[in-house]
Amino acid sequence: MRTIKLYDTTLRDGTQAEGINFSSEDKLLIAKKLDDLGIHYIEGGWPGSNPKDIEFFACVKRLNLKRSRIAAFGSTRRAGTAVAQDANVIMLRQADTPVVTIFGKSWMLHVTDVLRTTPEENLNMIRDSVRYFKKLGKEVIYDAEHFFDGYLDNSDYALKTLSAATEGGADTIVLCDTNGGTLPMRLAVIVDEVQQKVAIPLGIHSHNDAGMGVANALVAVAHGAVHVQGTINGYGERCGNANLVSIIPNLVLKMNIPCIEKNKLATLVELSRYVDEIANMAPDSRAPYVGSSAFAHKGGVHADAVLKNPRGYEHVHPNTVGNARRILVSELAGKSSMFMKASEMRLGLKKDHPALKAVLGIVKRLESEGYEFEAAEGSFKLLVEKALKRHTPFFDLEGFRVSVEKRRDGQLISEATIKVKVGELFEHTAAEGDGPVNALDNALRKALLPFYPAIADVQLVDYKVRVLNVRAGTAAKVRVLIESKDREAMWGTVGVSENIIEASWQALVDSVEYKLLKDKVRPHPIRK
Amino acid sequence: MRTIKLYDTTLRDGTQAEGINFSSEDKLLIAKKLDDLGIHYIEGGWPGSNPKDIEFFACVKRLNLKRSRIAAFGSTRRAGTAVAQDANVIMLRQADTPVVTIFGKSWMLHVTDVLRTTPEENLNMIRDSVRYFKKLGKEVIYDAEHFFDGYLDNSDYALKTLSAATEGGADTIVLCDTNGGTLPMRLAVIVDEVQQKVAIPLGIHSHNDAGMGVANALVAVAHGAVHVQGTINGYGERCGNANLVSIIPNLVLKMNIPCIEKNKLATLVELSRYVDEIANMAPDSRAPYVGSSAFAHKGGVHADAVLKNPRGYEHVHPNTVGNARRILVSELAGKSSMFMKASEMRLGLKKDHPALKAVLGIVKRLESEGYEFEAAEGSFKLLVEKALKRHTPFFDLEGFRVSVEKRRDGQLISEATIKVKVGELFEHTAAEGDGPVNALDNALRKALLPFYPAIADVQLVDYKVRVLNVRAGTAAKVRVLIESKDREAMWGTVGVSENIIEASWQALVDSVEYKLLKDKVRPHPIRK
Repeated sequence: MRTIKLYDTTLRDGTQAEGINFSSEDKLLIAKKLDDLGIHYIEGGWPGSNPKDIEFFACVKRLNLKRSRIAAFGSTRRAGTAVAQDANVIMLRQADTPVVTIFGKSWMLHVTDVLRTTPEENLNMIRDSVRYFKKLGKEVIYDAEHFFDGYLDNSDYALKTLSAATEGGADTIVLCDTNGGTLPMRLAVIVDEVQQKVAIPLGIHSHNDAGMGVANALVAVAHGAVHVQGTINGYGERCGNANLVSIIPNLVLKMNIPCIEKNKLATLVELSRYVDEIANMAPDSRAPYVGSSAFAHKGGVHADAVLKNPRGYEHVHPNTVGNARRILVSELAGKSSMFMKASEMRLGLKKDHPALKAVLGIVKRLESEGYEFEAAEGSFKLLVEKALKRHTPFFDLEGFRVSVEKRRDGQLISEATIKVKVGELFEHTAAEGDGPVNALDNALRKALLPFYPAIADVQLVDYKVRVLNVRAGTAAKVRVLIESKDREAMWGTVGVSENIIEASWQALVDSVEYKLLKDKVRPHPIRK
Repeated sequence: MRTIKLYDTTLRDGTQAEGINFSSEDKLLIAKKLDDLGIHYIEGGWPGSNPKDIEFFACVKRLNLKRSRIAAFGSTRRAGTAVAQDANVIMLRQADTPVVTIFGKSWMLHVTDVLRTTPEENLNMIRDSVRYFKKLGKEVIYDAEHFFDGYLDNSDYALKTLSAATEGGADTIVLCDTNGGTLPMRLAVIVDEVQQKVAIPLGIHSHNDAGMGVANALVAVAHGAVHVQGTINGYGERCGNANLVSIIPNLVLKMNIPCIEKNKLATLVELSRYVDEIANMAPDSRAPYVGSSAFAHKGGVHADAVLKNPRGYEHVHPNTVGNARRILVSELAGKSSMFMKASEMRLGLKKDHPALKAVLGIVKRLESEGYEFEAAEGSFKLLVEKALKRHTPFFDLEGFRVSVEKRRDGQLISEATIKVKVGELFEHTAAEGDGPVNALDNALRKALLPFYPAIADVQLVDYKVRVLNVRAGTAAKVRVLIESKDREAMWGTVGVSENIIEASWQALVDSVEYKLLKDKVRPHPIRK
């Protein structure tokens, strides 16, 4: 069986995308997920270009990844510098990774116009830099930047740069379509020609400027490449890098190349959305395999036919990648999809429980309004309790008022007043805060604390805002996700509204109520 | 010179996309644009499936299109029906178009499971239906639905369906990858084999379920297809159809096939956004050739090198498709990208202008506080103007107050009051809104409109909120990004604060000020 190594560069080339900035913490969270999936290499950053990356390389060691090897990325030594004295090389060495990826120039245009050195010195730079890291015992991957453009311009010289990397001892040579403009027909011919001349394993690094990022990766594999570079969701400079989330199922399901464990394929949808969430990018609903529309059927004929025989209208089964079929005509979404929803939600109710249908109906309606319960199990639990009619509210809201005032001198004041009723007693308080939501949070806690001292343990650890319908401008609907914790547990809650204060309010109330429910606090105690 | 016919099905297959619904008027506007571009065929609809389409076919005649031929789409006659009596065929005839596109079944699975007829009758249905419209003097295009899946399942039968269409007199036979799951390597082999057996011109209709929509279209052309079907921006069921906006520049610029007039290529960006606008879809910033990020360069090294020689980092010149190069300002930016940015914005600054260093310093400080200027060129432009000390504020804020009140009955009221000073005049207004930010936005516009009527043109098209330090809970710092547009341009602005109202305020003010600066409005006019 042929094997293919997957090389993820979301954390390096992915951050070249417009609007994507990862903190070191974000990078560690993503690395963990990539390891779970079984990506063979994770390129963590470019220490010579971004000093923040050094921090990542130090922290990632402590994660004890099981499947992935960490690679640091950097250029060859500079022209006229001794390799061991080169600033970039030194930083690359300091990253202290088992794998080092060196990129060098294949295209004469770049040698003369960008590096401004001689063709011969460029070859020395490649050979020296690869050899240096091989002598340190690293696995060395050589990225031949602009290889396809360089090859078309001067194939002899482009091949010489690969020979220099081979002489240096590179373990893998990666042909890069850096500008992303190569079409697969030409790419196939060039990969074939290179295969004749280069004895070590070849890889492919493609970009999407002509819409060929994924196609070029697959065509290169069909023509012998055994190492594929890409990014999650195709993040990357300009039109992006080759999208690993499309490449992986194509390799496994269409080309029968088991590059990850088969059972991991079903985690792709979750992975894709998790990384979008961290990057704060709206998921692409049309993304192959993982998009929310990827198995959505519209129009009576298709929807009806797909029920008769899904194979007739779906290229793969949606479950294989963790996705789900959706029928967009609402009256066709019947009982069976309700049960699908039930198991998806891990309700803990038996299949014939009378409340099941009611809960599912509520969940469906709320999700269509923009609620999301995956990261809000606190809100979900409360919803089920309410549907089962066994929830007693811990308090009633009489009203609140939140205001933000900005004065001539720039001073900002955020204030909230709130009136609640607990049993037969009223509490009316006010509080300030850093912004309106914080003020409301403070006022709510102040009002409830005399009745429910357990609330003092609750800390809000995460507050996220996602605009749902961006095109509505400042009148857009927002979803607020709050994560809370006490000494024992963490729980998420959610709120949705056109009004960010109201959405935050819903999530705050659920956070408090879930805490009291979890601790089995009796509602409506005597005020302390 | 080889010629390729372009066949657009945005108005038929495109409307199968989730969230896309065109009125007859929308369709006419799009048809006009497609004609301007020089698309050879416009598929206007499926009269047998959507009775509204009949209206379109009646109206489109009055447009007197210059370059495009209109096609109506429909199925073959039903099993056991005489062609002239078949309801679908009758409606298709009533559409009264010069071109008729008939689709039929190539895959035995569909013949037996969906049509539930015999293989022989299916061939008769294809032959009869094509022949019927040929006898009426139409140009007939035959769409072989599910051809690639059918061919793999039973190549003999799939080829027989094509023979039936040929016998009926079809002018073109289009091989459809209806489920979108075929990879280009296999597609190429099948197209080659079909070419051996079919004497009439072949076309390709591909979908994007494996991310291969565009690649498959190009590979089919490389293997002899002379007719390409697709949609603008790749709209279509599930993951979409092949994107003509990617296919066209690939054919013209990469494969030297002049399928449209060369000077029309530069209208692609405008066409793509125009159709997105009508469809109410957010433009894909990463779209090949036409996306706003397609020629955006980030990071010091690339930005520096692109300045030295754009060809080294861009696969085509952005102007050829009507796009523009953009240099993204980020923490990775060095001095030369600041200079490029400045020249892109036509600031008229020389590379050694003392203000450049000052601007860079300010950008770095603001970015460390959480600002991001990549998607906020409006705010960046204002920042530079301020650093150059040539910015006169269009108004001064005397103060604002925003409040959100929630009553016992759940009613929410968001209100903003604002007092501004323009020159020597004061304006004090109030407004309500859907949420506090919308109320503030409304109040600000209301206050400024009497002085600056141009503000009436500004629309907010995007509003994004990112929580920066999530662990601070509801006291977290947030970054607000707003995208605004008028009739000519789009611009982004940014604000950062612990207070979401203040962050939104900063971005709103920048949006208004950028508009007035851009339009060269004189500050402090007499109130109208």
